[in-house]
Amino acid sequence: MKLLRYGPAGSEKPGLLDSNGQVRDLSGKVPDLAGAGVSSEALDRIRALDLDSLPIVAEPGRIGSCLASVPNFFCIGLNYAKHAAETGAEPPKEPIVFSKASSALSGPYDPVIIPPNSVKTDWEVELGIVIGRETLYVGEADAHGHVAGYCTINDVSERAFQIEMGGQWIKGKSAPTFGPIGPWLVTVDEVPDPQKLGLSLSLNGEIVQDSNTDDMIFGVAEIVSYMSRFMKLVPGDIIATGTPSGVGMGMKPQRFLRPGDVMELTVEGLGSQRQEAIAAV
Amino acid sequence: MKLLRYGPAGSEKPGLLDSNGQVRDLSGKVPDLAGAGVSSEALDRIRALDLDSLPIVAEPGRIGSCLASVPNFFCIGLNYAKHAAETGAEPPKEPIVFSKASSALSGPYDPVIIPPNSVKTDWEVELGIVIGRETLYVGEADAHGHVAGYCTINDVSERAFQIEMGGQWIKGKSAPTFGPIGPWLVTVDEVPDPQKLGLSLSLNGEIVQDSNTDDMIFGVAEIVSYMSRFMKLVPGDIIATGTPSGVGMGMKPQRFLRPGDVMELTVEGLGSQRQEAIAAV
Repeated sequence: MKLLRYGPAGSEKPGLLDSNGQVRDLSGKVPDLAGAGVSSEALDRIRALDLDSLPIVAEPGRIGSCLASVPNFFCIGLNYAKHAAETGAEPPKEPIVFSKASSALSGPYDPVIIPPNSVKTDWEVELGIVIGRETLYVGEADAHGHVAGYCTINDVSERAFQIEMGGQWIKGKSAPTFGPIGPWLVTVDEVPDPQKLGLSLSLNGEIVQDSNTDDMIFGVAEIVSYMSRFMKLVPGDIIATGTPSGVGMGMKPQRFLRPGDVMELTVEGLGSQRQEAIAAV
Repeated sequence: MKLLRYGPAGSEKPGLLDSNGQVRDLSGKVPDLAGAGVSSEALDRIRALDLDSLPIVAEPGRIGSCLASVPNFFCIGLNYAKHAAETGAEPPKEPIVFSKASSALSGPYDPVIIPPNSVKTDWEVELGIVIGRETLYVGEADAHGHVAGYCTINDVSERAFQIEMGGQWIKGKSAPTFGPIGPWLVTVDEVPDPQKLGLSLSLNGEIVQDSNTDDMIFGVAEIVSYMSRFMKLVPGDIIATGTPSGVGMGMKPQRFLRPGDVMELTVEGLGSQRQEAIAAV
C-alpha cells in the first residue's frame, strides 16, 4: 500500500493511493498515520478494508508529510563511503546515530525555509525506514519484520549549525521544514529489497546525487538491529538511513541553497519530492 | 501546581498534588499530560478548575513519568564547569545539544535497567525544562514565558555506548528506563528562580553530586533562546539541562552502576526520585 496524508498543514487526513493513482479517503476508518497508527497491526487493519469502497478524493490538494508526528526522527550519518569521503571523514566502523527535532517534519512539496543567518543549507536524499513494531535487542534476521515501510526523505542540513558551533549534529538538522518525508509511506510488501533502490536528487534540473541503496555501508537490517541494542524503537519512529555523495558541502567550490533553488529527489518506488528553497520571512 | 501521572506503566492517569500532599484525580477533566496537554493554555484550564472538587485518590500506587510522551527529549551537555573538567572536556563555548530516544522515559521510582553488555551505566541529576509554547527565534528576555514548568531528571547514561562506539552521544542516552522524570511537573509560578535550585544525588546513601543550578554555564533562558535559533520547540518537549560534577565516570577509580545500587536524587522544590539499578533479564 501507498499511504499518505492530504490537506492543509496541521489538518491533514489519512489517505491511500490506489492502483489507479487516485487518492482514497481513510479518515474515519483509521486514526491518523502516526505512532501506533502505523503499527504492523494497524496496517493489517487497513489491508482488511474494502479499499474499493473508500471514497475517491477528487482534489486532494496539498500532500503533507506521510506521518503526522514521529516519536523519534532518527538519522544515520556517513552511511555511503563516497559521501563520507566528500565530507573529509573516514567511513564509520559502526553506524553513527543522531536525530532531528520532530518539529522538522514537513510535506514533500512544501518549501524548504532557509533559516535566518544560514549560509550553508544543504540537501540530502535518503531512504527512510518507518518502524512498525517495538524493537529492542532484535537480530538482523528478524529486523525486516519490525519495519512498517519506507519513504523518501530529504535530510536538509545546515552545515555551519551542524559542524561549526560545537557539540553534536542535531543543531544543523532540526529547523522547521528540514524534514520533508513522503509523498507516501510504502508498506514493506511493496519493497521486496530495500538494498536495491536507486536514489537521486537534482538541483535546478541538474542531477547532483545519483546512487543506489546497495552502496550503503550499513543496510536496513543492520541499522535496525544495531539501534535496538541501544534503545527501544517504537511504531512510527522514522530512521533516515544516510545520503550518498553529491551534497553541496562536498562540491568544489561548495554550493549551498539560495532562495529560488529547486530540489527534486526520488527513491525508486517510493515517490518523488520537489521543494523550492525560500528565505525565512 | 504539581502535576503528576499515577497508575500502572502504560495506563497512568493525570493527577495533581494538592497543598495537603494528596493526589487529586484529573482524568476526565483534562487530556493526558503530553504534548499540547501541557501547553500554557492547557495548564490555564487546569488552574481554572475547582481543585477542591477533584476526587482524592486514596491510594495512587505507582507514580509514572510526569509526561506521558514527549515530542522531543532534548539534553544539554557539559553545562557545569566542574563536570566538564571531570570528563576531560573544555567547558563549551555554546550549548551542546543532543537528545535521548523518547522511549527512554520512565517513572521516578521505577528501577533503572542496566542494559545487556553494559559495564558503564552512570547517573546524572538534572533540572528539566518542560516547554509550554511553540518556541522559534525567541530572545532570552521572552524565554521564561515559553516554559510550562520544571521537573527532576536522572539523565542515565552508558559511557561506553555514548563515547566509545563512534559518532554521537544518543546511543549512550537512550536505553529503556534511562529517562526517569518527575515525580511532578512543577509549573513555573512555583519556581520563581530556576537558577537558584540545589540539586544532589546520592548513591547507596552517600552524596556524590551536590551543586546548585546557579553553577550552570548556560541558564534556562539562554538554553531556550539558543535552541530556538536552530529548531522549533513545541509544548511537551523536555530539555535536561546538564549535570554537575560527581558522576561515576569522573571518579578515581571510575564507579558505575551495579545491580542493587540505589540512586536518590532531588532538585530543590521539584521532588525527589529513587531508583534501584537492576540487571536486564
